[in-house]
Amino acid sequence: MPKAYWGEIKDPVHGYVYISEAEKNLIDSYPMQRLRRLRQLAGSEYVYPGANHTRFEHCVGVMYLASKVLENPNISSLLAEDEVETCRIAALLHDAGHGPFSHVFEQLLIKDLEKTHEDITSWIIEKSETGDKLSKMGFKPKEVADLAVGKLRKPGRAFLNQIISSGVDVDKQDFIVRDTYHTGAEYGFIDVYRLIHAMDVLGENLAVELGALSALEAFMIARIESFKSIYFHRVGRAAQIMLATAMEKANSELGLTAFKTPEDYLALDDYTVWAALKKCAASKGIIADLERRRMLKCAYERTFYEKDTMVSNIFGRESYRRQMQTEIAKEAGVSVESVVIDVPTVPSVPYHHAVLMESMEIPVFTRSQNGEKTLQRLSEISKIFETLKGFMNILRVYTDAAGRDEVEKATAKILGKIPSTAKISF
Amino acid sequence: MPKAYWGEIKDPVHGYVYISEAEKNLIDSYPMQRLRRLRQLAGSEYVYPGANHTRFEHCVGVMYLASKVLENPNISSLLAEDEVETCRIAALLHDAGHGPFSHVFEQLLIKDLEKTHEDITSWIIEKSETGDKLSKMGFKPKEVADLAVGKLRKPGRAFLNQIISSGVDVDKQDFIVRDTYHTGAEYGFIDVYRLIHAMDVLGENLAVELGALSALEAFMIARIESFKSIYFHRVGRAAQIMLATAMEKANSELGLTAFKTPEDYLALDDYTVWAALKKCAASKGIIADLERRRMLKCAYERTFYEKDTMVSNIFGRESYRRQMQTEIAKEAGVSVESVVIDVPTVPSVPYHHAVLMESMEIPVFTRSQNGEKTLQRLSEISKIFETLKGFMNILRVYTDAAGRDEVEKATAKILGKIPSTAKISF
Amino acid sequence: MPKAYWGEIKDPVHGYVYISEAEKNLIDSYPMQRLRRLRQLAGSEYVYPGANHTRFEHCVGVMYLASKVLENPNISSLLAEDEVETCRIAALLHDAGHGPFSHVFEQLLIKDLEKTHEDITSWIIEKSETGDKLSKMGFKPKEVADLAVGKLRKPGRAFLNQIISSGVDVDKQDFIVRDTYHTGAEYGFIDVYRLIHAMDVLGENLAVELGALSALEAFMIARIESFKSIYFHRVGRAAQIMLATAMEKANSELGLTAFKTPEDYLALDDYTVWAALKKCAASKGIIADLERRRMLKCAYERTFYEKDTMVSNIFGRESYRRQMQTEIAKEAGVSVESVVIDVPTVPSVPYHHAVLMESMEIPVFTRSQNGEKTLQRLSEISKIFETLKGFMNILRVYTDAAGRDEVEKATAKILGKIPSTAKISF
Amino acid sequence: MPKAYWGEIKDPVHGYVYISEAEKNLIDSYPMQRLRRLRQLAGSEYVYPGANHTRFEHCVGVMYLASKVLENPNISSLLAEDEVETCRIAALLHDAGHGPFSHVFEQLLIKDLEKTHEDITSWIIEKSETGDKLSKMGFKPKEVADLAVGKLRKPGRAFLNQIISSGVDVDKQDFIVRDTYHTGAEYGFIDVYRLIHAMDVLGENLAVELGALSALEAFMIARIESFKSIYFHRVGRAAQIMLATAMEKANSELGLTAFKTPEDYLALDDYTVWAALKKCAASKGIIADLERRRMLKCAYERTFYEKDTMVSNIFGRESYRRQMQTEIAKEAGVSVESVVIDVPTVPSVPYHHAVLMESMEIPVFTRSQNGEKTLQRLSEISKIFETLKGFMNILRVYTDAAGRDEVEKATAKILGKIPSTAKISF
Repeated sequence: MPKAYWGEIKDPVHGYVYISEAEKNLIDSYPMQRLRRLRQLAGSEYVYPGANHTRFEHCVGVMYLASKVLENPNISSLLAEDEVETCRIAALLHDAGHGPFSHVFEQLLIKDLEKTHEDITSWIIEKSETGDKLSKMGFKPKEVADLAVGKLRKPGRAFLNQIISSGVDVDKQDFIVRDTYHTGAEYGFIDVYRLIHAMDVLGENLAVELGALSALEAFMIARIESFKSIYFHRVGRAAQIMLATAMEKANSELGLTAFKTPEDYLALDDYTVWAALKKCAASKGIIADLERRRMLKCAYERTFYEKDTMVSNIFGRESYRRQMQTEIAKEAGVSVESVVIDVPTVPSVPYHHAVLMESMEIPVFTRSQNGEKTLQRLSEISKIFETLKGFMNILRVYTDAAGRDEVEKATAKILGKIPSTAKISF
Repeated sequence: MPKAYWGEIKDPVHGYVYISEAEKNLIDSYPMQRLRRLRQLAGSEYVYPGANHTRFEHCVGVMYLASKVLENPNISSLLAEDEVETCRIAALLHDAGHGPFSHVFEQLLIKDLEKTHEDITSWIIEKSETGDKLSKMGFKPKEVADLAVGKLRKPGRAFLNQIISSGVDVDKQDFIVRDTYHTGAEYGFIDVYRLIHAMDVLGENLAVELGALSALEAFMIARIESFKSIYFHRVGRAAQIMLATAMEKANSELGLTAFKTPEDYLALDDYTVWAALKKCAASKGIIADLERRRMLKCAYERTFYEKDTMVSNIFGRESYRRQMQTEIAKEAGVSVESVVIDVPTVPSVPYHHAVLMESMEIPVFTRSQNGEKTLQRLSEISKIFETLKGFMNILRVYTDAAGRDEVEKATAKILGKIPSTAKISF
Repeated sequence: MPKAYWGEIKDPVHGYVYISEAEKNLIDSYPMQRLRRLRQLAGSEYVYPGANHTRFEHCVGVMYLASKVLENPNISSLLAEDEVETCRIAALLHDAGHGPFSHVFEQLLIKDLEKTHEDITSWIIEKSETGDKLSKMGFKPKEVADLAVGKLRKPGRAFLNQIISSGVDVDKQDFIVRDTYHTGAEYGFIDVYRLIHAMDVLGENLAVELGALSALEAFMIARIESFKSIYFHRVGRAAQIMLATAMEKANSELGLTAFKTPEDYLALDDYTVWAALKKCAASKGIIADLERRRMLKCAYERTFYEKDTMVSNIFGRESYRRQMQTEIAKEAGVSVESVVIDVPTVPSVPYHHAVLMESMEIPVFTRSQNGEKTLQRLSEISKIFETLKGFMNILRVYTDAAGRDEVEKATAKILGKIPSTAKISF
Repeated sequence: MPKAYWGEIKDPVHGYVYISEAEKNLIDSYPMQRLRRLRQLAGSEYVYPGANHTRFEHCVGVMYLASKVLENPNISSLLAEDEVETCRIAALLHDAGHGPFSHVFEQLLIKDLEKTHEDITSWIIEKSETGDKLSKMGFKPKEVADLAVGKLRKPGRAFLNQIISSGVDVDKQDFIVRDTYHTGAEYGFIDVYRLIHAMDVLGENLAVELGALSALEAFMIARIESFKSIYFHRVGRAAQIMLATAMEKANSELGLTAFKTPEDYLALDDYTVWAALKKCAASKGIIADLERRRMLKCAYERTFYEKDTMVSNIFGRESYRRQMQTEIAKEAGVSVESVVIDVPTVPSVPYHHAVLMESMEIPVFTRSQNGEKTLQRLSEISKIFETLKGFMNILRVYTDAAGRDEVEKATAKILGKIPSTAKISF
């Protein structure tokens, strides 16, 4: 509960979330309210009809879980009161910079502006009305902006960043349980309270006590299974590719990445962009397909394990991907346009592979009878961790329903016949 | 499970929903896919951030529960195979005629066209591409259209209508559990399987065996508490009033009720209408308020119990409501525009009062040791039923934040000082 | 979380329950550990096979919920630290005096010793090893003993008693949600956090703010439906009657109520008494029946509403009940032994009727904009409350399977033909 | 639903379980009702207070899940009606042969009689009153007895055995979700309906279609984490060791393994044996300790991974274990009695290691577009499977609280100093 209790929000996942007046002021402002019109899992609703939750409730949930970490006696004993409130607010605002359809838009951001949604988040927090609000209420906008994306430079305070952005951050904890709740995919049950209760600070880093190893392993597995079942789902990816393509095609007309001010950017949301794409000649066909669930079809799929990271690097390069698409299209006798190679390690993917690997390096420790804490290497302790490290790359070739068979044959010829074992439909 | 299993849909509320190929074809068509862009509880997200579910998943859920009734041996033994499939499909399509923001749009429909969303549903099923699809697959569009709104005239088959539209229909069953699930409001837990298992046909009517009386009472209470906590919630109603006002104001410019063809109508959804209202001069101010959560404030609230139905009838008449608004505004020294009298019995309300009362007449029966069924009067058996019958009318006066105090005083003077006991904030 | 955190207990209902070292010492002692061998709902397992939970986990749960009330800022601001810990411990120990099969044994206690389980609880806390433990750890055994049964006399501190024993006490809150969880009866979902958060102290009494009226109504309804579906269930009552009869018959041989010391009493638990009843000639037949689920059959059942309390008073008197049993037996031509009149208002019933009525008087209040609290009368505000007040008396006549028809006829003749509407099998 | 519906049982885990009259007759007989007095997880209640569920409800749950497999169109199309009912009943009776405290008693069975609980199950089904009941109702007792333990020899019908006893049998599925439900340990959430729906028969074997790979992996992980968190929990094992020791010590006096007839055996249950152990001089001290939660302490713990199976084999031999216990006791200066080496691969353990490894060999297959099924090797497809195969051996040395430090030192000297990384307290 915040020191200055103002009221509460009922969340279907976490129950009552108690908020302060400052938090209420931020929540009831345009930049936060806009997140109600940004789907958390754009595209996944074509797989899981219940997946209509938004960045708004996720942000409230992240603030809630951050507050649970901040109430853990191991952590709270290290903190001044203003640090607690700053951290809660940074958690609340951590996704303020997301664009329409969340990660789908990020692909354009990176390509056209070399910016991630985190860059935009910091910018929004500092430069939009949010910055003014924060100043007036006595917070430092720059500090909140940095902390919200895990980049606060404050001596001895790395763990504050890690609460919001690290291998076991509350962002991941919230989206795993929330995505499971609203999709109904039954892979994301994790004991967040056990995880959070087992947290402590070693040096200046957030670490997890090994008594909670099962909860930690369950968390890592839930993440992987969520990737396979939700974020990397074949049909969900198809929808995201279609949306991304529509936005790319319409960009010159709609100026989606031509924003100059925070206000310009914040005018973009799922509703306005969907309505615009529907009218724009360049994109209306794709939207018409989505509105009839005429999805791109997967003509080829292969999953690579850790040794094959090279492959994903190759396909991650647009120029090479383009070249392969051309070859396959030629072989199949279809237009290049209609062939899409998808490697969910490129940044268009909701939660990309790079993060997947790095995040595994979670500091863990044992506590002796006399209270002494000893850092351990998770890889020496958990075989499951070792296995999951750098787990999964997926290579897929999508095309439209008409050309599916031809593209399947062409791809098999060019990329090598897919071994039957790899044709797994998760 | 349908006779001709094609695949399954994962629903967070009911689990796996197995569908036939015919159902798949209907689900993957524009009229059904459009329901993904119609919120189930437009306005309620301002109270419950998680309430972002749509008519689409609700329709799938209603088909699922209908199939459970149709599998109940008491019912299935009476049915031909094609009746089962027709009823499943009618359940699936039962909300095809909803407009943007669901019940909020219905207010315009009634006012301008004297049509309810059910009228539109029948029209869409028969006259849109859905009708053609149904014919091609061997169904009778008219029959499906009638059954979907509970108006099929088929001798001895009243119970088929009642599965979809009656006091214990699967529509209500689904929305109560689904709304509870996504809002997190903890009042809608009902044992739908018990209810469904206790169903039978008496004469030609659907009836509930009294062994399930507790489940039936829980269902009725869940409905009432859901009304109080969700559908009639003060803030949720404020949002709905704002949306309805925005649409009324913009209607002459946007032609929202000027549609001629099913296709015109189906082009309207939450996304397109929100985007249009945001641009339209007449409505943009209201949308700007909603996007900053600057809600209408409730300056007066009074709850009436059964004896007071007269009051709600009075306020249900627009001319009288208009007159009172004018008087209050004059007394308060504010514009008439800024005073709104809301009586959630007018049809703008999600689930209106009339339905509330009528729905209570649920046939119940006892079964003797030798299997004989005897119809009972629920009111003689359940005191809870008696109490809930005709339960609740709410009268509220809303205004903007600036004029709240003045309007509160003015209303108190004109409508009588509100007794403190009635100032309950449910 | 207790001030001096020692560890945690994982509860399937409430999650992690954090405990202090003092609490750990009490939990790991014989009087508390014994509660693991006292079923919470003895008899109900014959209706709900999952209902095997015990007084032990219930006591931990009650401590947990008490701590949530004690953490509510409205309450915590009134309390000294030692009061908080005393109240937690009183909640933990509140059922220490229960006997084998919980309320079933209480019938003997009352009949032979004129003592309730609460009397025994106080005695155990003060006079057993628990008293010594409490003293050594700095608590006052008498104070804990009084508070545990809601009878602490401390000026201005009535609310402390009411946390543990009143119309909305945490005892009821825990058993309703716990019994629902383990039985699977879907009537006990209540929003305990909302209820607890809405609590405050008026005068010296615990009261509930009316913003939580829906939660309060849901709580009252959940209680009633739990009574009908679990505690008063026809088959569950049959099992309890059989167990009570077995204990009465074996009492002279086993000396169940002849205990002199707390240690004597605490030697009794479900395991030891069941094993003894199985060997004892007077009771072995009943246990043999239970072990084969040959239950008493209900030959007559009638439910009375509030006006009929007279009837339950009449049948509550053993002498009169005995007389009626004799008459019915004679008329039916069966042994008096085999006819049992059951009125679940006699104290043998888990949660007896008297408590049911009294508990309804829950103080509620409204809080004005300036924070002023005004006491309200629940009966003027909640129609549901009015309806439920003094709701239900059940009169049943049980007999063995062989004599069922004869006893049914005889009872109908003597007690009047049962109207069909009352033959409801909830 | 069974062909001949008789009634239903409400299960907190699976909901309504519909049963036939034959099933009702078996359920209401002594051998099944006795399972109400056999805890599912004897010992685990000292870790998870809610873990009081019994073999009875587990058996009902296994029948329920078996029926779901039997309703899967892939399976049902292969079966005659009587096979379905036989398989349901075999599932219901599959644990009829368990002894007091389930697997704890099995240790004695194996040692004294070289019999497992499965051997006893077959014996009970055939030779007790159950056999007579089955015959009278038209079943073949021998067939049911064989199928209940997965040993029916019927050409082409291996899959029937595998429904009840194999790597993905419904026994494991039920206990994983049920144990999670009642313990509150949050590791056993599995999508049983997905798993069951993905089942098919290849040759005559039960196999899982690879579309459900995530569900299958989640199932395997849930099992492992349940082992670590529940079945192999340090404190739960301590309780089981204490119980097993008590029974061994008291055996000569109580004749626990001296039963001659099914009736003798069935007279043993948790209640009667606990009461007897409490009185018996040889065991009463241990029971007194358990009743005060004075548990054996773990002085040494080491987890071995797959390469170390040799180690568990060594310690699995009683003679060697005895020798090591003697050496450690001598070194520590304590009695041999007070040193216990525990390797949860010996059959005393609830779900022993051998089963763990073998069960991993789950046939999986892919289905091509034209419906052709191709068997796959799970190890080539799932890295998680590869990792989990032969996962975990735990070696622990327990002693009483007094000797803990000395035994810790002595063990470290004799078995080698434990590396800190292995001191993980899951």
